[in-house]
Amino acid sequence: MESKKLIMNYDTVALDDENSALVIIDQTKLPGKMEILRLTNQKDIWEAIYFLKVRGAPAIGVAAAIGVYLAAKEIQADDFDDFYKLFDQAKDYLASSRPTAVNLFWALNRMDSVVKANRGKSVSEIKELLHNEAIAIRKEDIWVCKQIGEFGLTLVKPGDGILTHCNAGQLATVKYGTATAPMYLGHERGYNFKIFADETRPLLQGARLTAFELFESGLDVTLICDNMSATVMKNGWVKAIFVGCDRVAANGDAANKIGTSVVAIVAKRYNIPFYICAPTSTIDMSTKTGADIKIEQRPAEEVTEMWYKERMSPEGIKVFNPAFDVTDNDLISGIVTEYGIARAPYTETLKDIFQKKEKFKDSF
Amino acid sequence: MESKKLIMNYDTVALDDENSALVIIDQTKLPGKMEILRLTNQKDIWEAIYFLKVRGAPAIGVAAAIGVYLAAKEIQADDFDDFYKLFDQAKDYLASSRPTAVNLFWALNRMDSVVKANRGKSVSEIKELLHNEAIAIRKEDIWVCKQIGEFGLTLVKPGDGILTHCNAGQLATVKYGTATAPMYLGHERGYNFKIFADETRPLLQGARLTAFELFESGLDVTLICDNMSATVMKNGWVKAIFVGCDRVAANGDAANKIGTSVVAIVAKRYNIPFYICAPTSTIDMSTKTGADIKIEQRPAEEVTEMWYKERMSPEGIKVFNPAFDVTDNDLISGIVTEYGIARAPYTETLKDIFQKKEKFKDSF
Repeated sequence: MESKKLIMNYDTVALDDENSALVIIDQTKLPGKMEILRLTNQKDIWEAIYFLKVRGAPAIGVAAAIGVYLAAKEIQADDFDDFYKLFDQAKDYLASSRPTAVNLFWALNRMDSVVKANRGKSVSEIKELLHNEAIAIRKEDIWVCKQIGEFGLTLVKPGDGILTHCNAGQLATVKYGTATAPMYLGHERGYNFKIFADETRPLLQGARLTAFELFESGLDVTLICDNMSATVMKNGWVKAIFVGCDRVAANGDAANKIGTSVVAIVAKRYNIPFYICAPTSTIDMSTKTGADIKIEQRPAEEVTEMWYKERMSPEGIKVFNPAFDVTDNDLISGIVTEYGIARAPYTETLKDIFQKKEKFKDSF
Repeated sequence: MESKKLIMNYDTVALDDENSALVIIDQTKLPGKMEILRLTNQKDIWEAIYFLKVRGAPAIGVAAAIGVYLAAKEIQADDFDDFYKLFDQAKDYLASSRPTAVNLFWALNRMDSVVKANRGKSVSEIKELLHNEAIAIRKEDIWVCKQIGEFGLTLVKPGDGILTHCNAGQLATVKYGTATAPMYLGHERGYNFKIFADETRPLLQGARLTAFELFESGLDVTLICDNMSATVMKNGWVKAIFVGCDRVAANGDAANKIGTSVVAIVAKRYNIPFYICAPTSTIDMSTKTGADIKIEQRPAEEVTEMWYKERMSPEGIKVFNPAFDVTDNDLISGIVTEYGIARAPYTETLKDIFQKKEKFKDSF
């Protein structure tokens, strides 16, 4: 196992040293309680994903990979076909925990490929290869985030104020996060950033998760309501903005949590650079522009009653509650990936990023 | 008494037909419950102001005027000096209910002037004059709001989408509100506006009050989180923005509820006109620019726990919670007052508004 030097005392997702448990932070208890779960049986792992105890696309993928390795390890079979039948069942079971999570399937399929490619080997050798693959998936996630952090860090100076929106933090990955990666790396190097975290209505991921993880990690973080961003920017307190993203189109338009485009528009007013932190896995070159991205509408109750002691608006009121918005490419100063920073014109530079990725693969 | 044709079934503040009670909507019960209070004794009136059952600068002023009239009416004295001593006590008592509310003192002083100017008259005549003055203060408030509504209505067309922030509504005045006045007048005339109400974190006046009063009045209103404004504007759903204000500086910079300037910045991006609705009482020509307006900081708990079932961020987290922000004059398409609409350059046009006001007074 790799060293346990951790940003937040605990990684978001890990395999324990005895290779017997998936270890996660229970995010449904945050910010009130920091509870570490050691999950050893498949039902508990399934429920952890289903009930969002582990969340964030990269973190879910890693949890599923570790989960299906733990299932494979317990299979009592010497014959490959007997083994594969039970492995396949375990994989389907975990896949059913969040049927819309792309990373869940991606990770499980990658584990599946390892088994299929090693049909000639013994079951115990295959179990060892599955262990290695789960660890590799986990390490790659950390590597991607760390690379984003290194590139992001070149965009800011010690002492800078940095604003972020929603949670593209360690809690959505194994470690470092994406938008938070430059903050954590800078923190390790004594940069003394001053972070502003938008609370991010309606689901308050900024207040509950981002403010929590940065605060726990000892960073200087100030929580604000989303509508206070203009004031902190006008006051000169923000030198750069880092946010995550759900999908980047080929022209650089970026879909991310609702309110991201408001931050970008306000940043432009005050000449503050606005950066999207995007693993290449979120850049979709088959989506031409942001207009091609369908925006999910979510229930009214998230706005009117979800967190509240009582309803906060009249019964029957119409509510518009889009989960995401699209930030137009002209508002984006740069897209920070694990292979470098793309700048306008994105239609060209995002292609360059993918070429770098291909070359990097070839260099193995 | 004037006719009881009301926007919301009830005016926010009124004197009952028997001249025996201050009638208010209990705003602390909104939006869950619409409760009309008939307050006849001074302690109840004092508490209604103190506990924000009646709120909004204009509404507080009117409530105080009616309140001190009701106190005067009950005074058992034939001699002026005996009467004035008790009147003065009643006035001081009500003034202590919200010592920082400028309109409270303004209204009480105006009532006081009536008494002092009529020392020669009988106590019963003075009581009648106080009745008339309270009614006049109330009517003037309605007149100011209605004028703002008429001027505002010239800026929009039937069927338009209109966005507002916070509550500059009927609930902050006697009737019509300021930012909502064009909406209510248009509604009476079948304009079929589509209103978008920002919920307005942290105190949620948009969700609790604005969405409530427009919905109750039968307008087409949609509640959104503050960070969704860019999406509704980008979608082409908003043709104009009307907001209230706390103070307008001589150069047109306007302080209003936190988040107002975010709306203005986003509106500029999408070429949507942004209007400040401002009774001349809120225009302060002695304040040169917005930089001279001190912004009140409010408690962190408003952001982290006030409305919530439980705390929404870690204990000890830093919070920045300014009550207001300043919208720069270049973002403001017009300032709608009861004497007309001022446009840039405001340093000139706001003077013109005050000249119109002087002329209007002379025309009495």
